[in-house]
Amino acid sequence: MRDLVEFGMGRTARRTYELEDISIVPSRRTRSSKNVSTAWQIDAYRFETPILNHPTDAIGSPAAVIEMGRLGALGVLNGEGLWARHEDVDARIAELIEIADTDRDPAAAVRFLQELHAAPVRTELLAAAVAQVRAAGVTAAVRVSPQHAPTLTPALLEAGVEILVVHGTIISAEHVMLVDRGHDDGLVAEPLNLKTFIADLDIPVIAGGVQDHRTALHLMRTGAAGVIVGYGSAEGATTTNEVLGIGVPMATAIADAAAARRDYLDETGGRYVHVIADGDLHTSGDVAKALACGADAVSLGTLLAAAQEAPGRGWYWPSAAAHPDTPRGALLQVAKEQARPSLERVLNGPSDDPDGLLNLSGALRRSMAKAGYADLKEFQKVGLSVRG
Amino acid sequence: MRDLVEFGMGRTARRTYELEDISIVPSRRTRSSKNVSTAWQIDAYRFETPILNHPTDAIGSPAAVIEMGRLGALGVLNGEGLWARHEDVDARIAELIEIADTDRDPAAAVRFLQELHAAPVRTELLAAAVAQVRAAGVTAAVRVSPQHAPTLTPALLEAGVEILVVHGTIISAEHVMLVDRGHDDGLVAEPLNLKTFIADLDIPVIAGGVQDHRTALHLMRTGAAGVIVGYGSAEGATTTNEVLGIGVPMATAIADAAAARRDYLDETGGRYVHVIADGDLHTSGDVAKALACGADAVSLGTLLAAAQEAPGRGWYWPSAAAHPDTPRGALLQVAKEQARPSLERVLNGPSDDPDGLLNLSGALRRSMAKAGYADLKEFQKVGLSVRG
Amino acid sequence: MRDLVEFGMGRTARRTYELEDISIVPSRRTRSSKNVSTAWQIDAYRFETPILNHPTDAIGSPAAVIEMGRLGALGVLNGEGLWARHEDVDARIAELIEIADTDRDPAAAVRFLQELHAAPVRTELLAAAVAQVRAAGVTAAVRVSPQHAPTLTPALLEAGVEILVVHGTIISAEHVMLVDRGHDDGLVAEPLNLKTFIADLDIPVIAGGVQDHRTALHLMRTGAAGVIVGYGSAEGATTTNEVLGIGVPMATAIADAAAARRDYLDETGGRYVHVIADGDLHTSGDVAKALACGADAVSLGTLLAAAQEAPGRGWYWPSAAAHPDTPRGALLQVAKEQARPSLERVLNGPSDDPDGLLNLSGALRRSMAKAGYADLKEFQKVGLSVRG
Amino acid sequence: MRDLVEFGMGRTARRTYELEDISIVPSRRTRSSKNVSTAWQIDAYRFETPILNHPTDAIGSPAAVIEMGRLGALGVLNGEGLWARHEDVDARIAELIEIADTDRDPAAAVRFLQELHAAPVRTELLAAAVAQVRAAGVTAAVRVSPQHAPTLTPALLEAGVEILVVHGTIISAEHVMLVDRGHDDGLVAEPLNLKTFIADLDIPVIAGGVQDHRTALHLMRTGAAGVIVGYGSAEGATTTNEVLGIGVPMATAIADAAAARRDYLDETGGRYVHVIADGDLHTSGDVAKALACGADAVSLGTLLAAAQEAPGRGWYWPSAAAHPDTPRGALLQVAKEQARPSLERVLNGPSDDPDGLLNLSGALRRSMAKAGYADLKEFQKVGLSVRG
Repeated sequence: MRDLVEFGMGRTARRTYELEDISIVPSRRTRSSKNVSTAWQIDAYRFETPILNHPTDAIGSPAAVIEMGRLGALGVLNGEGLWARHEDVDARIAELIEIADTDRDPAAAVRFLQELHAAPVRTELLAAAVAQVRAAGVTAAVRVSPQHAPTLTPALLEAGVEILVVHGTIISAEHVMLVDRGHDDGLVAEPLNLKTFIADLDIPVIAGGVQDHRTALHLMRTGAAGVIVGYGSAEGATTTNEVLGIGVPMATAIADAAAARRDYLDETGGRYVHVIADGDLHTSGDVAKALACGADAVSLGTLLAAAQEAPGRGWYWPSAAAHPDTPRGALLQVAKEQARPSLERVLNGPSDDPDGLLNLSGALRRSMAKAGYADLKEFQKVGLSVRG
Repeated sequence: MRDLVEFGMGRTARRTYELEDISIVPSRRTRSSKNVSTAWQIDAYRFETPILNHPTDAIGSPAAVIEMGRLGALGVLNGEGLWARHEDVDARIAELIEIADTDRDPAAAVRFLQELHAAPVRTELLAAAVAQVRAAGVTAAVRVSPQHAPTLTPALLEAGVEILVVHGTIISAEHVMLVDRGHDDGLVAEPLNLKTFIADLDIPVIAGGVQDHRTALHLMRTGAAGVIVGYGSAEGATTTNEVLGIGVPMATAIADAAAARRDYLDETGGRYVHVIADGDLHTSGDVAKALACGADAVSLGTLLAAAQEAPGRGWYWPSAAAHPDTPRGALLQVAKEQARPSLERVLNGPSDDPDGLLNLSGALRRSMAKAGYADLKEFQKVGLSVRG
Repeated sequence: MRDLVEFGMGRTARRTYELEDISIVPSRRTRSSKNVSTAWQIDAYRFETPILNHPTDAIGSPAAVIEMGRLGALGVLNGEGLWARHEDVDARIAELIEIADTDRDPAAAVRFLQELHAAPVRTELLAAAVAQVRAAGVTAAVRVSPQHAPTLTPALLEAGVEILVVHGTIISAEHVMLVDRGHDDGLVAEPLNLKTFIADLDIPVIAGGVQDHRTALHLMRTGAAGVIVGYGSAEGATTTNEVLGIGVPMATAIADAAAARRDYLDETGGRYVHVIADGDLHTSGDVAKALACGADAVSLGTLLAAAQEAPGRGWYWPSAAAHPDTPRGALLQVAKEQARPSLERVLNGPSDDPDGLLNLSGALRRSMAKAGYADLKEFQKVGLSVRG
Repeated sequence: MRDLVEFGMGRTARRTYELEDISIVPSRRTRSSKNVSTAWQIDAYRFETPILNHPTDAIGSPAAVIEMGRLGALGVLNGEGLWARHEDVDARIAELIEIADTDRDPAAAVRFLQELHAAPVRTELLAAAVAQVRAAGVTAAVRVSPQHAPTLTPALLEAGVEILVVHGTIISAEHVMLVDRGHDDGLVAEPLNLKTFIADLDIPVIAGGVQDHRTALHLMRTGAAGVIVGYGSAEGATTTNEVLGIGVPMATAIADAAAARRDYLDETGGRYVHVIADGDLHTSGDVAKALACGADAVSLGTLLAAAQEAPGRGWYWPSAAAHPDTPRGALLQVAKEQARPSLERVLNGPSDDPDGLLNLSGALRRSMAKAGYADLKEFQKVGLSVRG
C-alpha cells in the first residue's frame, strides 16, 4: 500500500500527502463536546490545549508567551530572536512593519530583518525574559538553535528555563553540525551531539524539525521529550521549498513520526516521546487533522500571529526569514492591525469567524466530539479520507 | 479496487471522490426526454421532482416552502430557525442582508445571526408556520435538531407536521448526545435514542446528516424513512471542513449510503430507505450526478436561495453559520436581489441561463434521456467516469 | 491497466483523461517538416488539412465555409442554424454581439439566440446556401439534427449537398428519438433509424457526437463514413457538463472511438470509418494531441471563430446555446473584432502568435516532424505521456 | 512500478512527473554547508557552480557570458542569435523591449523578433564575440543549431571556441534533418550526422534537447560530452506545448536521461556523459530538485535573465520565439529594469529575496548540506517524494 513511484527509469519517490489532502471521517457514535478533553501533558507539564507557538518574534514576546500560558497553551521564547538581541524590540518591529507595509519590495523587510539579527545575542536580555515569564507563574520554554545550544543553555538554566526547544529548519541527531548560521553573531559555534547534550540536562528537551521517520527516531533516541515535525511551512511566508527544494508533506510526515514514536516506545519498553506538528496549520480544521494524523500537539504560526497580543501587529514571519545570506521566508500580513482578536478568542473562543481562525480549542473539541472521541490519544485513530 | 492509501507509515486513509470528479457517460440508446419521469415517492408522499431544500432560513420561509410544494418539490421548514424564534423575520433578514452587503467583515453578519438565534424557540410560531403550509395543501415537513427533537416534536405533531426531519451537521444513531448546541436556547436538551423516538411516531422521519456507510446503516435501522448524506457543503458558505477538519466527498458518501440502503434492504427483506444527498450541489449537472451516484433525492441550498421567493434576498447561509461559539458558515451572495429568477423557473424552467442554474428538473430529465434511462431508480446505474 | 475506480462501496467509475493531461513524447529520428503530409481523405473527398468546423453559426456562414474549402479544410453549414432561418443573418448576429458585448448578463444573449432560433427552418434558404458553396467549387457539407434529418435531407440532396453531417450533442444509433429539440420549429419530428436512413443515401454521412466505444461502434455499423467524438466542449462557451452532468474526457473518448474503428475494421474485413474529434481543441497543440490519441480529423470551434471570415465577429457560441428551455452554452469572445487574423493565417500561417492560435496545419506538420512521422495515420502511434 | 496508463481502450501513456511534483526529503545526518562542494567538471573544464545559460539573446551577450564565467558558471553564446546577425544589438533589444512593454499585443514583439532574425548570420561577428570571451580568460562556449552546425563550426573553431553546443528544440542523433528552420537565413542547410560531425571535432560537444531515454542514449553514442534534457520550458515564455502538443515533464525526463547515462557508462566501460537539465527551473529549489533527480548541471533562463548584466533588461524570451512561421515563445518580464540584481548576487549571493531567486549556488549548497551530501554526484541519490 505504501506507494513508491518510479517517476523516471530507475529513480523512485515516495508518494506523500499534505494535510489539505486529508479529511476526518466520523463513523462512531457522536459525543457531547462537553465530555471531550483536549488536555496534553509533556514531562511534568500539563496544558489544557495542545498548542505551542512557532518560535518566531512575530509571536513570541515575553508578554504573549505569558498570555499563552495563562490560557492553557505553551508559549515559547525565541532564544536567538529579537528579544535576545535588542532592548527596544517594539520600536524595531514597528519599523519593520512600516517597511513591509509601505514598500512593495518584499526584500526590503527581509533586509531589515537581516540587519536586526546581525546584532549579537545578549544573555542578560534572555535571562530577563525568562525571569519575566517565570514570575508570571507560567511554564518557561525557550528555543535555541542546535549550533548555539551549548553556548546559550547555561545562562538559560540559570535563569530558570523549564523546557528547552532545540530547533532548526531541519536538524539531525547523529551528527549535528553547522546546518544553519541564521542568527550567527560571531559566537563560536560547535557541532552538537544531542544525545550527550540532553543527557547532561535536568529539564525536558523538545527537538526538531525533522521530516522523516528515521530522523525522528534518531532524535527520540537522544532522550528528547518531544520531537517537532515540519519546518513551519506557511504559504506566502515560509519559502523553504522554493529556496531549497525541500518539502514536508505534513500528513505523511506526522504519521511517519508517530510511527517512530511507536517504534521507540517498543524498543524502550514504554518511553513515550511527543510528536509536535509544525507546518501548514492555518485553521482549526488543520489543527484537528494534524492531531488525527498522529500528532500530540501542534506548533502554530499564522493563527497566533493574528492575535492582539502577538508583537508582530498582524504580521507573520518565520525565523528563517532572517537568514543572513539565504533567507527562506517573508513577511505576511495575517490580520489588519485594528481588527485583531484577543489571544483568548483565538485559543478559547467564542468565535464569530466562519473560517476556523478563532476558538481553536473549542473547534478541536467539537471535531473530536462529532467523531466520537473523548481524548487526544484516542482521536489519533479517527478515520481519514484522501481526495481521490 | 477500493483504495486504501497508506499516507504515512502504518496510517491509512480511504481514497474518496467529489461530485466534481465524476461525470456521467451515456452509453445506451438515447430517449426522448418526454418519456422520462423524475418522480420521487417517500412513504405516502409523491413529488414530481426529487428536490428538497437544505433547512436554512435563507430558503425555508413558510411562503417559499408552499411554493416548492406547489411546484412538485418538498419544502422543509427549519423548526429551530428564525421563523420559530421571531415574529418579524422579514425585517430581521433585511437587517442581516444590510450588514452582509455593506460590511466588509464576514464576522459582522455571523455575529448578528448569532444574536438572532439567541432568542428562544416559540412553539406557537412554529405551529402557525406548519398550519400555514398545511392550509396551502402542501406537504408539511419540519426540521428539528436531534437534541431538541423530543421537546419540539409534540407541538409539531399537534400542528399537523407530516414529515419530520431530524437534522444536525453530523449525527449518529447509536448514542445521540449534545453534538451541537447551535440553537440552544436554554431548553433542557437530552440525549436522543432515535430508534425509540421514531418508533413512537406515526409520521415518517428523515434523519441526517451522515457521511459514511456505517452511520447511514445505523440510521436506517432506527426506522427512518430517509437518510440525509452530507452536511450541505457549499464553497464560500459552509465551512465545516475549515473549522472542524471534517469533509464529506459527496460522490463517495452517496455511493456508500446507497450501499447501506442495499444492505438494509437485504437484512429487512425489502424495507427501502431513501438516500438524500445534501452538499456540493450547485448546478443541475451536480443534481444529475448525485442521483447517478445513488441518491434518491437531493437537498439544495444555493440553487434555491437564488430564487425570488427565497427569503434570503439572494443570499445563502447554512444554519450552522449561527452556532453560538463555533460558527461553521458565512453569508454568500448567490444572486443579485433585482435579478432573481422565480422558483418556478429554477425548478421547472424554461432556462436562459447557460450555467445550469435554472430548469433543474428539465435538465435532469434531459440528462436521463441522453443517458437512456426512464426513471430515477434506473438512472442510479448509469455509467460514470472519474478524471484520471 | 484500464482503471476502474470503486469511488464508493459497490459503485465504480472509469478513470478517464483530458487532452490537457496528455503530452506527445518524441522518441524517434526527427524529420524535416517538408517531408510531412497532413492530408486527410474521407470517402472520395480529399483535404490538405484534417480540419472541420463545429457546426455553429459563429463560424459556418456560406462565405466562411467556402474559404475553409479553398484553404484545404472542410467547412460545414449548420442546416438548422440562422442561415436556414433568416435572410438577414449578418444584421441579426450584429444585434446578438451588441447584446453580448454590452450586457453583463450572459442570459440576455442566450435569450436573443433562443428567439432567433424560434423562427422556422426554410428549405429554400438552405438550398441557396448549398448552391453558393457548390458554385465556389468547394465540397458542400451540411449539418442536420437526428430528429430533422428525414425532413430536411431531401431538399439538401436536391440542392447538391455532398456530405451530410447528422449531429446532436449526444446521439445514438440504436434508437434515435427526440433527444434534443434544440431548434424545434414545429415540424413533425420522428424517430430516426440511422442505419435505414444512411443506407438510402448516396452521399457519405458523418454522425455524432458520441462519447464511448459502444455508441461509436454502433454508429459505425449504421454505415456512417465518419463518427464525431465529443460534443464540442469549450471552456466558457459549452456548458453541457454544468447543465447535464455529462462530460467527455477527450483523450479517452478519442482513443475509445479509435478502438471501435479497429474493431469495426476487423468485423467488416476492411471498412475504415473516420474518427473526428470535437471538443477541448483550443490550440494547435491540442489538435496534434487529438490526432496523436487516434483521431483522423478534428472539428474546431473557438480557433476558427477568431478568424476575420467567421461571421461571429470574434465571438463563439455552440449551437446548443440556443436550446429553447435548457441552453447548454454561452457567448464567448475569442478575439477582438479589430484584431482578427485571416482564416488563411489561422489554418496555414505564417504565425506571429506564441500561443498556438495560428498556422494550425504548419504546427501540426512540425509536431509530426519532430516526432518523426510522415503522415497522420502513422502519427496516431506516437508516444504519449500523462501527468503523474 | 513504472506506470503505464491505458487512458483509452488499447492506447497507453506513461505517467510522468514535473519538478514541481517532487520534493527533496532529508533523511541523513546534516552537514555544514561549508563542507559541501557544488563543483562540476565537463571534459577538461571545471566550474564552481553547475550552471549554464539557456542560449537565448535575453541572456547570452558576450559581456554576460564573460561575467558568468568569472563567477564560476558556464556562459553560452547563441551562435545564431542577434549577436551573430547585427552589430547594434543593444539598440535592437531596446526597441524590442519598448514594443513588448508598451504594446498589449504579444504578437507585436514576436513579429519584431522574427524580423531581427531574418538578417543573415555573419561569421565575422561571431568570431569577434568568441574572441572577446576568450580574451577575458573565460571558457568560450557557442550554441549552433543542428542544421547550421556544419556551416558555422569551421569559423567558430578558428575563432577559438572551446565547447560547442549543438542545440535545437528537439533533436535526434540518428537522422538529424531540417527539424527547425527557426533562424534560417538562406544558408544551405544539410542534414547532420552528429556522430561523424563530433568525431571530426577536437573540442567537446554538448547536444540536445532531448526528452526521452532512447534519444538521450543515441545522442550519447554520438560522442557528445553532455546531453541537454528538455527544451527550456518556462511558463509564460516558452509555448512548445501549446503550439506542438509536445511536453517534457522534467523530473521524469531528467531521471530517464540519467538512466541513459548509466546504460552508456556500462556499455562503454566508463564513458560518463553529462546530463544538463533545461526547463522549468525558476527558483534555487528547482535547481536543487533537478540535480537531485539526476542532472549533472542545469541550463537556466528566467533566473539569469533577471540579472543586471543580462542584455534583455529584465525580459526573457526563448530562442524559439523568433521562429519565422511557427513561433513557440513570447517575451516575459522577469524583473523590473531598475530593480535587477547583479549576476553575482543571482549566482553567489548574498540574498535578501525570500523566493529563491538569488544566491543559487548558496541555496544549492545549503540544500545539499541539510540533506547530508558533500558533492553533486552523491546528491543525485537523495530521497525524494511526490505529492500523492
